[in-house]
Amino acid sequence: MEDVLRYIDENRKAFVADLVDFLKIPSVSTQPEHAQDMVQAAAQLQARLEALGLETRQFTTERHPMVYAEWPGAPEAPTVLFYGHYDVQPPEPLEHWKSQPFEPRIEDDKIYARGASDDKGQLFTHLKGIEAFMKTRERLPVNVKLIIEGEEEIGSPNLVPFVQSHRELLACDCVVISDTEMWAEGVPALSYGLRGLLGAQIELRGPKRDLHSGLYGGAVPNPLNQLARLIALLHDADGRVTIPGFYDDVREVEPWEKEAYAQLDFDENAYRKDLGLKALWGEKGYSVLERVWARPTLDVNGMWGGYQGPGGKTVIPSVAYAKITMRMVPDQNPKKIAQSFREYLHSLCSESVELTIEGGDGSPGLLLPTEGPIVDSAKRALAQAFGREPAMIRMGGSIPVVATFAEALEAPCLLLGFGLPDDNLHSPNEKFNLDCFHGGIKTIAHFMNELGRKDSANE
Amino acid sequence: MEDVLRYIDENRKAFVADLVDFLKIPSVSTQPEHAQDMVQAAAQLQARLEALGLETRQFTTERHPMVYAEWPGAPEAPTVLFYGHYDVQPPEPLEHWKSQPFEPRIEDDKIYARGASDDKGQLFTHLKGIEAFMKTRERLPVNVKLIIEGEEEIGSPNLVPFVQSHRELLACDCVVISDTEMWAEGVPALSYGLRGLLGAQIELRGPKRDLHSGLYGGAVPNPLNQLARLIALLHDADGRVTIPGFYDDVREVEPWEKEAYAQLDFDENAYRKDLGLKALWGEKGYSVLERVWARPTLDVNGMWGGYQGPGGKTVIPSVAYAKITMRMVPDQNPKKIAQSFREYLHSLCSESVELTIEGGDGSPGLLLPTEGPIVDSAKRALAQAFGREPAMIRMGGSIPVVATFAEALEAPCLLLGFGLPDDNLHSPNEKFNLDCFHGGIKTIAHFMNELGRKDSANE
Repeated sequence: MEDVLRYIDENRKAFVADLVDFLKIPSVSTQPEHAQDMVQAAAQLQARLEALGLETRQFTTERHPMVYAEWPGAPEAPTVLFYGHYDVQPPEPLEHWKSQPFEPRIEDDKIYARGASDDKGQLFTHLKGIEAFMKTRERLPVNVKLIIEGEEEIGSPNLVPFVQSHRELLACDCVVISDTEMWAEGVPALSYGLRGLLGAQIELRGPKRDLHSGLYGGAVPNPLNQLARLIALLHDADGRVTIPGFYDDVREVEPWEKEAYAQLDFDENAYRKDLGLKALWGEKGYSVLERVWARPTLDVNGMWGGYQGPGGKTVIPSVAYAKITMRMVPDQNPKKIAQSFREYLHSLCSESVELTIEGGDGSPGLLLPTEGPIVDSAKRALAQAFGREPAMIRMGGSIPVVATFAEALEAPCLLLGFGLPDDNLHSPNEKFNLDCFHGGIKTIAHFMNELGRKDSANE
Repeated sequence: MEDVLRYIDENRKAFVADLVDFLKIPSVSTQPEHAQDMVQAAAQLQARLEALGLETRQFTTERHPMVYAEWPGAPEAPTVLFYGHYDVQPPEPLEHWKSQPFEPRIEDDKIYARGASDDKGQLFTHLKGIEAFMKTRERLPVNVKLIIEGEEEIGSPNLVPFVQSHRELLACDCVVISDTEMWAEGVPALSYGLRGLLGAQIELRGPKRDLHSGLYGGAVPNPLNQLARLIALLHDADGRVTIPGFYDDVREVEPWEKEAYAQLDFDENAYRKDLGLKALWGEKGYSVLERVWARPTLDVNGMWGGYQGPGGKTVIPSVAYAKITMRMVPDQNPKKIAQSFREYLHSLCSESVELTIEGGDGSPGLLLPTEGPIVDSAKRALAQAFGREPAMIRMGGSIPVVATFAEALEAPCLLLGFGLPDDNLHSPNEKFNLDCFHGGIKTIAHFMNELGRKDSANE
């Protein structure tokens, strides 16, 4: 591996320059005004993969294109499917960014930009790991496929049916996804669990027009007060979600997991301080790591109605809104929870206001394999790249397509993530440590090597 | 009075044209970008009063100027102080207006514009009533003073100290305010009660930065969920406000009032339908009229935080906001309630979030004289102008300066209002019926005549 690793070390700066080019494209999938940027980001990806000697193509969807590439030149070796997403979260609120979200800034060996860690920087570890082999040996130790979508941040509406209808194209021995975190700086991790996601938008309509709160106040329902009431009723005093049946199918954390989490030396006080909080909050009876990894949640992501400007306006608004997401864990059934949520909210709602709930069926929480030859290859690759054994952790976030891959392709998914907890995902000043980027590229190279070697050894 | 009344009838169209000119000025007191429009509105008012032969001047304040005028030419007669305000509410949301808020539109004998009824059209009844006398007789039957402010919609911060420090300038036998409603089309009313106003803005801070709701959800306080909880706790299941002591000093409605309200033939079903509601809402045990006239309330006027754009954003926002107003009734002490509100909210608030409450001391609810020679003059003037006896009603809205006038000038206040319940005050498509405008002008003329005549008769 010396040649490959030397190439990676020697090209450290060039890799970063390439990533800067990619981060400059504001590929925000949820905002229609960025449709053309999405097209440009996909085109740049395809061109890079083509230049490495892979066969590439794009698949158009109703919204944003998918980029596919493959290198099938190792018929005796296993096939790895790499997945990533080139779309990013909206950068707002812009005023809290120290530099422009789409003008990457490098400071203190970190690169700051929207998408730096989630997921452009991480998916680039796949490209650059592949590049290192192709440029030094003109071949890869394993067969490789890549599928890179532009709709992860809006719930992958088109990738899921695509995977289901392209099982042969995507057939593989394992799926590698780099969209998760290391445990800490210098401490690699293999994530074996993900939470699912269930989103809903609530609209509450009261009077058909905005009313003067003096002339009408006290005799008419105020959608803002009523919305607050509905949302408040969704948690009890112990921080538990009150939706009927919400916890029925939740799998409790296993003893070995509790032990593994305890060994991580999680510093609750440092965590609290880093977030600027006087106190943490959460479900009674569970540790912080259990709360974010293994327990389901309900959070309001946005809420609005009435007058938000300077000064006052004595109005009872006609309508109020909230965006809500719930994080699902094994073995909750998101569809069942969505149904219960809707019924429960309607049962709580005053007859004086009209409640509309929009939302899909959601995605389930997942537990991935924690042992077996492929997982062992990944553990070895992480250890070789970072110089220490990886931690076995879970992820509080959601990667909806993981369930689809696991089911449709019947292949184990590996979450080889290189982000850090302070990467400010979905927040202003998102960043990616360049050491993580570099270690990630090495991990991908080692993993392909381990997997190829292992297979040869088996012959 | 024939000459005066004829002048009013003959100039009906000209009066409307003058009002159109005045309504074109977007004098929104709460929005700093309209500061120059405020100056222009005050200048137009002053010019009109000057042209009628009154002595005029402006008083500057820290924000918006006050216009003062007087005609002291009837030394033997009483003095009437007319009060009005030339500022208006913000016109937002603009997309719900059928025509532009500051391009007055006349349709079906109504004039549509922000401020048409509240209060530019109503204060014009004073100007035009005075004009009718001055143009026909070159004098008024009583001494007249006018004070017209530009800060009513932001709580009259400068008028209150001004009245207190200019008692001699403003000395009078009664104050006339036209900023209230008639009972119905063609049914004049004398409003003898007003609710007070107590406002507050709440800021709830959680994590010091926006967080990914997957990575952190379940372990950190979400300011939006916590805000909803706080607001929900401010009402009980019977629609009563839970702030300690909130109802302690509330004066119950008197038997004669209950009787008078019952005689008004209020159609609760038509009221509900007009507002597009499936059901009304309010404090248990009280009628609609009692709820809006004589009971205190708490309404959220605006609430916001997190992501409000299209699609979703899985964020736990750092901060959430709400604007709240309470309507005060006799004999609640707003200062005491404000204090109790702040203490109560802080006692309810989770230690995991930081609560900030901004707000003033508020204004009290008021009951005004319902009998006596001046009130009788007003009743006769209304009956003469509209052809039927006025209803005795209260107003759910607030005119904070009324208390100041009553106390500082030791003069009775008369609320001679010409608006209608469907005028869309503070809402899109605010309007003023031209019949109300016309009847209002006649009422003001009759009232001055009655008051002048009465006094002569006493000699």
